[in-house]
Amino acid sequence: MDGLQGKSEVAGNYKRKLNYGDLSLRVLALALTLVAAIVLGVGKQTTVVPLKIIQTLPPVNVAVTAKWQYSSAFVFNVVSNAIACSYAAISLLLVLADKNGNKGLAMLILLLDLAMVALLFSANGAAGAVGLVGYQGNSHVQWRKVCDVFGEFCSHVAVAVVLSLLGSLAFFLLVALAAMRILKKAN
Amino acid sequence: MDGLQGKSEVAGNYKRKLNYGDLSLRVLALALTLVAAIVLGVGKQTTVVPLKIIQTLPPVNVAVTAKWQYSSAFVFNVVSNAIACSYAAISLLLVLADKNGNKGLAMLILLLDLAMVALLFSANGAAGAVGLVGYQGNSHVQWRKVCDVFGEFCSHVAVAVVLSLLGSLAFFLLVALAAMRILKKAN
Repeated sequence: MDGLQGKSEVAGNYKRKLNYGDLSLRVLALALTLVAAIVLGVGKQTTVVPLKIIQTLPPVNVAVTAKWQYSSAFVFNVVSNAIACSYAAISLLLVLADKNGNKGLAMLILLLDLAMVALLFSANGAAGAVGLVGYQGNSHVQWRKVCDVFGEFCSHVAVAVVLSLLGSLAFFLLVALAAMRILKKAN
Repeated sequence: MDGLQGKSEVAGNYKRKLNYGDLSLRVLALALTLVAAIVLGVGKQTTVVPLKIIQTLPPVNVAVTAKWQYSSAFVFNVVSNAIACSYAAISLLLVLADKNGNKGLAMLILLLDLAMVALLFSANGAAGAVGLVGYQGNSHVQWRKVCDVFGEFCSHVAVAVVLSLLGSLAFFLLVALAAMRILKKAN
């Protein structure tokens, strides 16, 4: 870990350590959650499906649309990624602005990083689970699969879930590395 | 925090701190994830629904069953709670057996606690999202609500998700308090 830490002297008597590993992970988390929110946010697909309304007549073509606002799980995922992305940006500025190595701030950032782990993993579980039902369907409750019709939208969901998962892993590492760093320093 | 720590002398020259706050949270996490896994695991409901197979004939009564094995999200939730529960038991024994305040072990436990936060929140998101579709349905993709038919099973899901959420909060607190404790000690 020490290899990742840059040291600079502030006012001659205080060593401020700028942790480049932490900063890089924070930038990565920001980018991943931003792209994840955008990918799912722009994923809108309208497609025409033949629908048999009356048995004796030929099927009627109906336009159906899939978008993230139609599922609470996807809304939760987009909102969570947006929150995590905004927080990553704010925490990045706070870490850069913190010239004195404030202990209270370090604790606050660690706790909020941890909260992002919980929020993002929860959001990933939700979007992943609903996405999987869309992909496989569930014959026991007669929820049919929809990814054969909304293939493009499902790809957006899959990419967003993977990016969001990588983003949550970045926050996971931020917490793990911070904990290791302070445990090393303790007693 | 100090008020929660009991101190006992070991071999006269080493102060071992047994953290009762940590131990209580670990027992709580164990109990909550255990009960959550059991509540969802035993939630099986068979009900008879009238089904119209041929339009001109009266509906036929068909027995349909709901159980956790029928949904990947519920399987994920039960398995995750079982893993978290087993880990809570093992970590409890390790913490109690650790007479020397081993730093490596403390780090390992903190990292695994963090992994449980990620695993459980993900499992809660998944079960919660699929449970919500079961409760509300989704008209956009014609997934009908099923909780009007499987009310008892849905209650099991709801209770299990709440217990599992409380269990994940216990792990969240374990990580947060451990981080605060070591940051306090670090200079």
